[in-house]
Formats: sequence, structure tokens, C-alpha cells
Amino acid sequence: MLKVAVVGATGYTGEELLRLLVNHPRVEIASLTAKVDRPQDISDIFPKFAKKLRMECANLDIDEVAEKCSLVFLALPHTVSMEAAPRFLELGKKVIDLSADYRLGDIETYEKWYGARHKSSGLIARAVYGLPEFYREKIREADLIANPGCYPTGIILACAPLIKEKVVELAQIMVVSYSGLTGAGRKGTMAFHFSEVSENLKPYKVNQHQHIPEMDQELTKLAGHPVKVTFAPHVAPISRGIMNTIFLRKRETISLDHVIEKFSDFYRDEPFVRIKASGSFPQIKDVVETNYCDIGCWTDETSANLIVSSAIDNLTKGAAGQAIQNMNIMAGFDETLGLV
Amino acid sequence: MLKVAVVGATGYTGEELLRLLVNHPRVEIASLTAKVDRPQDISDIFPKFAKKLRMECANLDIDEVAEKCSLVFLALPHTVSMEAAPRFLELGKKVIDLSADYRLGDIETYEKWYGARHKSSGLIARAVYGLPEFYREKIREADLIANPGCYPTGIILACAPLIKEKVVELAQIMVVSYSGLTGAGRKGTMAFHFSEVSENLKPYKVNQHQHIPEMDQELTKLAGHPVKVTFAPHVAPISRGIMNTIFLRKRETISLDHVIEKFSDFYRDEPFVRIKASGSFPQIKDVVETNYCDIGCWTDETSANLIVSSAIDNLTKGAAGQAIQNMNIMAGFDETLGLV
Amino acid sequence: MLKVAVVGATGYTGEELLRLLVNHPRVEIASLTAKVDRPQDISDIFPKFAKKLRMECANLDIDEVAEKCSLVFLALPHTVSMEAAPRFLELGKKVIDLSADYRLGDIETYEKWYGARHKSSGLIARAVYGLPEFYREKIREADLIANPGCYPTGIILACAPLIKEKVVELAQIMVVSYSGLTGAGRKGTMAFHFSEVSENLKPYKVNQHQHIPEMDQELTKLAGHPVKVTFAPHVAPISRGIMNTIFLRKRETISLDHVIEKFSDFYRDEPFVRIKASGSFPQIKDVVETNYCDIGCWTDETSANLIVSSAIDNLTKGAAGQAIQNMNIMAGFDETLGLV
Amino acid sequence: MLKVAVVGATGYTGEELLRLLVNHPRVEIASLTAKVDRPQDISDIFPKFAKKLRMECANLDIDEVAEKCSLVFLALPHTVSMEAAPRFLELGKKVIDLSADYRLGDIETYEKWYGARHKSSGLIARAVYGLPEFYREKIREADLIANPGCYPTGIILACAPLIKEKVVELAQIMVVSYSGLTGAGRKGTMAFHFSEVSENLKPYKVNQHQHIPEMDQELTKLAGHPVKVTFAPHVAPISRGIMNTIFLRKRETISLDHVIEKFSDFYRDEPFVRIKASGSFPQIKDVVETNYCDIGCWTDETSANLIVSSAIDNLTKGAAGQAIQNMNIMAGFDETLGLV
Repeated sequence: MLKVAVVGATGYTGEELLRLLVNHPRVEIASLTAKVDRPQDISDIFPKFAKKLRMECANLDIDEVAEKCSLVFLALPHTVSMEAAPRFLELGKKVIDLSADYRLGDIETYEKWYGARHKSSGLIARAVYGLPEFYREKIREADLIANPGCYPTGIILACAPLIKEKVVELAQIMVVSYSGLTGAGRKGTMAFHFSEVSENLKPYKVNQHQHIPEMDQELTKLAGHPVKVTFAPHVAPISRGIMNTIFLRKRETISLDHVIEKFSDFYRDEPFVRIKASGSFPQIKDVVETNYCDIGCWTDETSANLIVSSAIDNLTKGAAGQAIQNMNIMAGFDETLGLV
Repeated sequence: MLKVAVVGATGYTGEELLRLLVNHPRVEIASLTAKVDRPQDISDIFPKFAKKLRMECANLDIDEVAEKCSLVFLALPHTVSMEAAPRFLELGKKVIDLSADYRLGDIETYEKWYGARHKSSGLIARAVYGLPEFYREKIREADLIANPGCYPTGIILACAPLIKEKVVELAQIMVVSYSGLTGAGRKGTMAFHFSEVSENLKPYKVNQHQHIPEMDQELTKLAGHPVKVTFAPHVAPISRGIMNTIFLRKRETISLDHVIEKFSDFYRDEPFVRIKASGSFPQIKDVVETNYCDIGCWTDETSANLIVSSAIDNLTKGAAGQAIQNMNIMAGFDETLGLV
Repeated sequence: MLKVAVVGATGYTGEELLRLLVNHPRVEIASLTAKVDRPQDISDIFPKFAKKLRMECANLDIDEVAEKCSLVFLALPHTVSMEAAPRFLELGKKVIDLSADYRLGDIETYEKWYGARHKSSGLIARAVYGLPEFYREKIREADLIANPGCYPTGIILACAPLIKEKVVELAQIMVVSYSGLTGAGRKGTMAFHFSEVSENLKPYKVNQHQHIPEMDQELTKLAGHPVKVTFAPHVAPISRGIMNTIFLRKRETISLDHVIEKFSDFYRDEPFVRIKASGSFPQIKDVVETNYCDIGCWTDETSANLIVSSAIDNLTKGAAGQAIQNMNIMAGFDETLGLV
Repeated sequence: MLKVAVVGATGYTGEELLRLLVNHPRVEIASLTAKVDRPQDISDIFPKFAKKLRMECANLDIDEVAEKCSLVFLALPHTVSMEAAPRFLELGKKVIDLSADYRLGDIETYEKWYGARHKSSGLIARAVYGLPEFYREKIREADLIANPGCYPTGIILACAPLIKEKVVELAQIMVVSYSGLTGAGRKGTMAFHFSEVSENLKPYKVNQHQHIPEMDQELTKLAGHPVKVTFAPHVAPISRGIMNTIFLRKRETISLDHVIEKFSDFYRDEPFVRIKASGSFPQIKDVVETNYCDIGCWTDETSANLIVSSAIDNLTKGAAGQAIQNMNIMAGFDETLGLV
């Protein structure tokens, strides 16, 4: 059994890690920590775990946690992760960081978009961007995973085949996303109050969202040329899930069937990417609480436009599920273990 | 035009007062105040009022507000109201207090249930409980209205005819209520986070809700004998509305038709109470954003039980709408003005 | 008092017409009809109208209805409207048709997109497209109004200033819309079942929605050149409201402030269009149950892209509210009467 | 591997059976049938099963299905089940019937409440009521299980300890329940339209719900004396889950701690019943998509009333999960296999 620790167990991402890990056949949850007033059984914090998971959740003591486990999930806010990660690595532990702290290769970009100084820049080059569909081999050898952001995961998967194969213009990638409220984190602020969210739809951080440089970086790597996404995120009255609608410009005539074929070929062996048949589109309810990314397309031969639509669960493929997929790869397990 | 002030304009109750007052044909909104960092136009706080209401909302200065208006709505938290009310009364203003501060005749009861010392107990006897269906004449003469709580409004209206006419046992009044989230106030706490509320139902403060002594006091007055309600409130994933389901024990055989007839007679001239025909029941969507209280009943001749169900909008008949109904009575306007 | 009839009173659009007309100070609802099994009081169909509106709703008898009123709202499905409209016009009544039957100037386009033969093509030229912001003068003189579709209303208003002033490319207008469920009509089908919609987001009819030719026609007229919109509509778990996110390509450098200024100038005198300040965006909750269309923009000087976002209530500005706005113009009333 | 068939795979209950069975380590899904226009892969019907479950779903042919499996889940409407069950039993198959057809011992009661003639009354005595907490030994030997209704499951579990131990009056059991919309079945009717359900709460079939005789029968058996429940079910805007709030009258003074102790003792060895500590209450989100029934209580020593609150997922413990729990018992598996 692989002994793992969850640091930051009481956020939405931490809760989702627990939901999945508790049923994982080759994992033992060896430690749970979070900012708590006093040590508490996890089922006092999340009553849904009563009779399922009996374990104390206390404040983080890095040495103590490190003694109990060989792999650590950091489900911490950005800037907090970079304080814990180096110490776990020094103690010989593998780290999967679900924050943004090690995702961006360029420190200046990080500091500009996240408004904070990077205190652990020496480790950035060591971190592997944990999108298994593209970095599976590197993940296998890594001891520090920068687990991708929720928006980038669904958007990169939806753009990659077209960008790599130069089917579309790199200068015109326009994305509208709608995200559920767990994406905002377990924070008690008025903007997330039920009565502000229910029966409402709302754009926010239009072309100013901190996930933009992450998408640009990764799509640029895939394209081999600079890519700059135009991004309009919105809040939808759902708890979990992200729906991305992406407008692209075709570089040459290509039929819908041909586009779908390219996607199907590209992701043929991927266990967690599903391509919709012509005329079908993804929807949140097909991916919620799963690690799948569903992708659908539209174009016609007379149009220069191509629409790609992708859906994921922001907490699963967009965070905790993908983290476990990475763990499976690092540990040499079947990549889908505990995830289907 | 009656010049009114809204003190506490930025809470859900204040917002609802504005929604209704802005269209009231005989009212001029003369002053808006709230706890704000700096004076702001109300449409910067609530963009829905753009092009409808242009008025600065500043911090409360009692003398300044009193100069501009003749009637003040206090949409403040309990314990805060009792600091402002006496001063407005001294300045000769009429006050409609939407908090709980002047609802309970017994100071000890107030201090026990609200966990705070009462600093304005001398005014309690002067305050009139603002349930027009029972205290219309007193309201007409009053200068201080204790506007009823949201749960008591719907529950008292649903029990009154049966209690006054001694159709049911006073010792067994059991109520299950489900309330929408605006009832909890405009507070950013995790319990009100969309993802905690959506797809959830949840009891809270079972038989410990601070509205219990208010119901007991008013039902006791109507019955002429002590009444003690058993009360199980719940949170439902809706923004507005309260559904009350009340179990009562019949003192003698009575048919459903006869019960409905008693209700219909009792409320015959009431503009805002509607009795459902046999076999029909109230629902939230029929009363939302209205000042109506809809009431339905069930019993059969073989049963000792009687079920009464009532629905109101907690912000309208349960707060701001009823406050304006009281204002209409105090000002000598048609009681329904601005409310239908 | 203007005597009006609502034909098709039991659909969502009919219900919204009633909600607004019942409070309109210069209108008398003279007749309600709908497909009903037997004549019923409208408050038996919509209990929310109890004590507010007492009127029988029977099956349509055109002569009978025409006798009672001088203006008719047709809240009927497309293809049904075109059977009633000619007869009301013959009987000298003014007609506001909320269906699509008279919106498209080109019969072939209608027949292709709506899959039905047009039986009243002679009247198409007589019909005025009821978007007051552009056709106010013609509406004043009209006796047949083709009331705009819900998607076209919000999208045309959001594109018009940029298209008329040639700020953007006509060939690249890409729209993502999310609509509430009343837009789908009062139909009991599985796709609209609460459990299929709640916690879900879903694209549908991607670039195949029947409102596309309507937008193309109207934007083409405004541009003076052919416009072809790429359109991805989605379903959101809300009852009312449409949020449009529109990507446009700038023809030349233009700052955000300058764009907002253009919008503000363009709609300066419009009572129902509100332009958001820089950095602010529309949201559904600001427009729900109102006749407003809120518009916000984003661009920066280094970007060739421009994002415009607009929000309306599909039942109000997108249907019944706009129909009443048209009625006000036709009757010589203040255009905002009964709508603010 | 136990080979099972799901008959009626496309309803909500069938879908939930698939969700659970697909991950059950000792089950092979051998056959899926449903009313379909033509045989279709199940992932064309429920896209969420793509890459997870590849199996054709065709119309029911009893002989063909029986050949492939040894146990059949009937997820059929009542009256339809009783046509299939006898034939599967004749062919030597074990049957778990999720309809109401074999739940009521008294045929007249069935025919009165379900408004249909019973065509398979000879099998009623052979059927075992599938509530494992009370009939585990009989279930082990049974070949026909009458799987309990969703309301009775949560209500019986919440009343049983108090009734068996004569802590409460049998004549006064009053229940308010709120259920999610999947409880209504996968039917496209207006009452389930998102816009009728969202932001609404609504009683229905007050004291006339067909689950009443089932509760009365089972509680009467447990009490050894006639029990008659007063039952007010409601619809809540959630997809899954039932919250029951039960008012009972104490026969003698008993403290809350003592009540909770009785519950805890009674269900000590039950894997799927969880008793909340004093001051805590169940909520839907703790049980959704699980087979747990959570129970909480309130009383105080001065009160004659006792409130018990229970929460289940109507599709899991209220239907498919409990069916699989029964299957586990019948097959000699660990009772929790595939359910935690």
C-alpha cells in the first residue's frame, strides 16, 4: 500500500482527494492535516465520511507528516504551497502540488499574475506539469508535480490536436468558460452566497484570469509558436463542472468528420478523454464526479470557424482526480486505478 | 408624497424595501444609509437600480436622516435597531423596525433568546406588533412598529383561526418550516456558500430558533391561553420563500370543508391572505415577490389530525412588504398601495 | 384605457404578459384565450393571480376576441400565429406577434429554418420588426409587429454600435449564449426535467439555431453589408435570463474607454439599454423580471479582440416586456409605462 | 462472478443500478433491457457510461434475459413488474423487484392505493420485504424481494427503535418529507419542468400518498399494534435525496441522550445507518449517492414531543443501493460490497 498524506484536507479539493483516495485499492491515507482550531476526526468536519474514514485531522507538522507517508498531496492555496513543498522534497517525499506555485516556468509571469514573490523558484525547473496526456513519461520520473489548473486542463485538451497539427490559426483562440462554485474554493464571501449565485450567470476577470499564462505557456509549447488565448470565464449556478466553448479559425478547409477523426486519433489511447460523435456535445452531467474530459466539435465546409466544446469536473479531472492519475503513474499503478 | 428613509439599505431586507418603495406612488425615498466604506450611489451597490433610482447611500447620521423624512424603516440587525429607534422617535419620526428588538413584551425572554441586554426597554410597551391582520387599528395610531419575523408571520396567520375558535388543542402545535437563503441575511459565511446549499436540505436550530418566543407570545394572546409551538426550521435551496407545514390536533370532529370555511370567513376582508380550495395547496412560486400569504388545509372526518400549510415570501410579507403595508396603514393610504 | 387581448395566455410568454399588463396603468385586459379543455378562471391556471386578476380563459374565438379589444398580443407558437394574425388585421385590430412568423423578410429562409410552409407571406412586408431602439418610428405607425426573438434582441443590441460604426470585422462575430429554461417554452419533455437541467450545462443546436437568420438579417441591415454570426447557444440551470458573450475582431486600434463611449453615445436616450462602466459586466440578476438590456465590454489596446457581453430577461426584454414597449409606442403612451 | 440483469435500465432507478453495479467487484452485468425504439448501446442513452460500460440495451425478452443471468433487478413501474416477476421465478431466477407490486400483504389495500388489479397475488406471500435492517435472515433465503419504497425506508428506520421499545404513542406519528425530483421518475411532464421546480417548494398528495399503507404495514408489524402515519410529502428543488422530519409523542419522560443511546444501540451493527450526536442533524449532502440513512433527534425533558429527522438518497438507500444490499445478502457477499 502506498502511504499518502493530504495537506489541506478541508478545502473542496482536499475533500475530493479524500472521496477518491478512500476507495483507492492500493493507497493508505496515512495523514490528514489542515488549518484547524484543534485536532478533529475528519468525519466531524465532513459528516459524509462517518463509518467510512476514521482519522484525525490536525494542523500541519511537516516532519510528523513526512514520517508517516511517502507521497504528499498539497491542496493548499498558492503561495502557501511553495513553503511546504521544498521541505517535503528535502525529506525525500514525492510531492503533488495542486496549487499554481510550480506551474509557470517564468518567475516574472508568476509574480505578475499571482501578485506575490516566488520563494521557491529553484524548484520550478524540477517540477513536471502534471497533464498526463502530454507529459506521462516525465511524470513517471518526477518527484514534484505541478498539477494543472482547472480551466487549463479542459482548454488545453480541447485545443491540443488542432494546434499541434496546425489546423487552426494560433492568433485567434477565443474561449468562453462557465465554472461551478467549488472552483472558487471553500470561502465564505458574499459573492458565493447562494442567493447571489442561484438564478444568476456572471462573467468575471474577463481576459484577466490568472490561468491565462498557464494556458498560453502550455499551448505555446505544443504549437512551437507563441499562443495567446482570449478568455472570458463566467460563474454558473452549479457546484461542480466547467464547460468550455472555444472558437478557432481554420487555416484551411476541413470537414467536421475530419476534425473529429483527428481528435479521435490523437486521444485514441487516453483513458480519460472521450470524443463525441458528430452532432453530439459534451455536458456537465456526463463528467461530474469523474476524471473524464468530454470533447465535441462543430464546423462546416463553408465556414472558416471551428467550435470545440469541452467539459470536465473542476474538482476531479481539474484537480484531485488528475492528481491521483499522476500519483498512479508515479507509483507504477494502472493509471485509472481508483478513478473509474 | 410621504418622505421615507431606509436605514440599512444594503441588506436583503433593505434591497427589498427599495424594490417596492421605488414604485410606490405616494412615497419619496428621501434617504438611504448603510454601513459603507464611502458614500456610493445605490446603483453602484445594486446595479439593478441603474436608470431607476439615483441616490447616494452613506453612513447613518441620525440627525441628517431625520431632517429629510417623516418615517424611517430600520432594516438593521437586532441590538443595532434599539440604538437608533429611540433617537428617531425623539426627533418626532415614525419608526418601522424590521428587527426583533421591540417584538417581545418580556425583556427577560428577549435577553435569553437574543443573548444581549435590552437597552431600550422603556419603548417596548409603546411598540405595536405589526401584523395588520390582527392589530390594524393600533398600527394606525402607532409611531413605533415592531415588524414581525418571517417565520411567525406565516405560522401565526395559519394557526390563528383554529386557535381563536378553539378548534384545536393548544398543547400540540408542531411546525416544520423550510426557508430560502435570503432569510439568513447578506452574510458571507460558508454555511451559505452555493455549494453547501445547492442540492441540500438541512434542519437547523431545531426547537431553538429565536422566533419561537415570538410565535408563542402572539398565539398565546390570540388563544387567551398559553401556547407553546414545537418548531423544526430547515434550509432549502431557494433564494426567497418560506413553506410552513403545521400539524394540529382537533378538539372535536370537523370536516375539511368546514375548516376551509372557517379560514375563508376569518380572512374574508384581508387583501393579502388567500385560502386554497379543498385539495389545493400553497406553493412558493405563487407568493414569491408578493405580499400574499397562501394557506391550504387537510383533514378528514376520521382523523384527529389537521394539517395546515402556509407559504409567504420571507422578504415581502415576511419583512419589507409587511413593513410597507404597515406604512400604508399609518399614513392613511390604501393598504395595498405599491404592493399589488 | 386601451383594451387588449392575450391569445395564448397559458405559456410562459403569456404568463409574463399578464404579470406586466395587470399593473399597466392605461391597459385593460379585455380577453384571455388559450388551448384549454374548458373555460377556467385564469387564477385556477396560475394561482399567483388569485385576488389580482379575475378573468375567464377560454379557447380562441377570433370574432369574439376582436369585439372586445383593439390590440391583440399573439403569444402563440410559430406557424400558429400566421393563421390568427391575418384575421385580426382584417377585423381592424392591431397585432403584436410574439412568434417568429413575421420576422424574416425572406420566405425561403423562413421555410428552411422553421421547417414549415408560410401561409401568410403577403403580410410579411407589412410587419415591422419590433426592436424599438432601431425601428421606433415605424412601430408608431404599424398595425403588425413582429416582436423579436430572445437571442436576437440581446445580441443585436450588443453588436449594433460596433457594426454600424464599422469598428469591427463583419465576417467574425462569434457568440456564446446561455439561456434559462423558460426560453424552451412550457413543454413537458425529459430534456427540461429538473434532474436533467440542475447542476448541468449543455450546448444545443450549435450554429443551427433558428434565431441565426434573424440576427443575420437585422445585423446585415444595420451594417449595410452581409453579416453572418457564428452562434453557440447553451442551456443553463436558471429559469429566466440570457447571457451573451460576443467575440469580435477590431478593424483598427481602439481603447476600451473609447468603445464604452461609443456604446454610451449610441444608447444615450434609450430607456432600456444600460452600458456598464469599464471593468464592470452585466449579470442576469440585474435584469431579471425587467425590460433592461445590460451591456459590458472588454478590450485592450494591444489586442485585436473585443468582447461584448449582454444580459436580458428572455421573457421580458426578450418577449413580453418588449411587446408592451411596442404597444406603448403604438398607443402613444410613455414608452416605459408599466415597465419600470 | 454473479451474473445479473437490469430490466428497465433507462429510468432513474435503472441508471443508478448501473452506476453501482459497474463497479461492483463480484458482479457481471449480463443483460440490459428497457423500452427502446431499437437496440442501442447504453452509452448512447447515458453518455456518462462511455468508455466504462459497453453493452446493448434492447427490449425485454424474458427467456433471452433469463438465459444470461441468475438474478434479475426489475426497475419497472408498478403493475408492469408483476407481469415479469412470475416468469423469471418460473425460470429459476432470483428477482429483486424495485416496484411496489409485492410490498403490500393485503391485496385490497394494494388495489385501492395503486388503482389497479393485482395479477400475481399468489406470489405476495413468497416475497420478502427487502429492508435488511429488519429482515436480513429472510432475505438470505428469498428468491423474490419486494424492495422498499423510498419514503418508507427513511421513515421506518427513523421510527423503528422508538416504536419497538414503546417510547412513543402509536397514534401520533406525523411526518413531513421533502423529496428530490428523481423520486418522480424519468417522465417528461410540466410539473417536473425546471422552471416549475426551481425556486419552488410544494406539498403534494397530503395524506394520500401511496407509500402510506406500506409504512403503516411495516410499522404495525414492528409495534405489534396498529400504526397509522400522518404524512405530508413535498417536492424540493434537488435532484436526489429525501429529508424526513417526524413528530412523535413520548409516552413517558425520556432525555435526548437516552433517545440517542436507544438509536445507537438499536443500529449498532448496521453498516448503513448512522446516528447523529446530540445537537447534530442529518443533511442531504452527507448521504447523496451513498447507501447511508442518517438519523438525528431532538427532545428535552420538559417536552412531550420528540423530533426525529432522517435523510437518505432516494435512488440509493431508497431504491438501487438497497436492492444491491439485498443482492449482496442473497449471494452471500459482504453486505457492503460495491456500496462504500
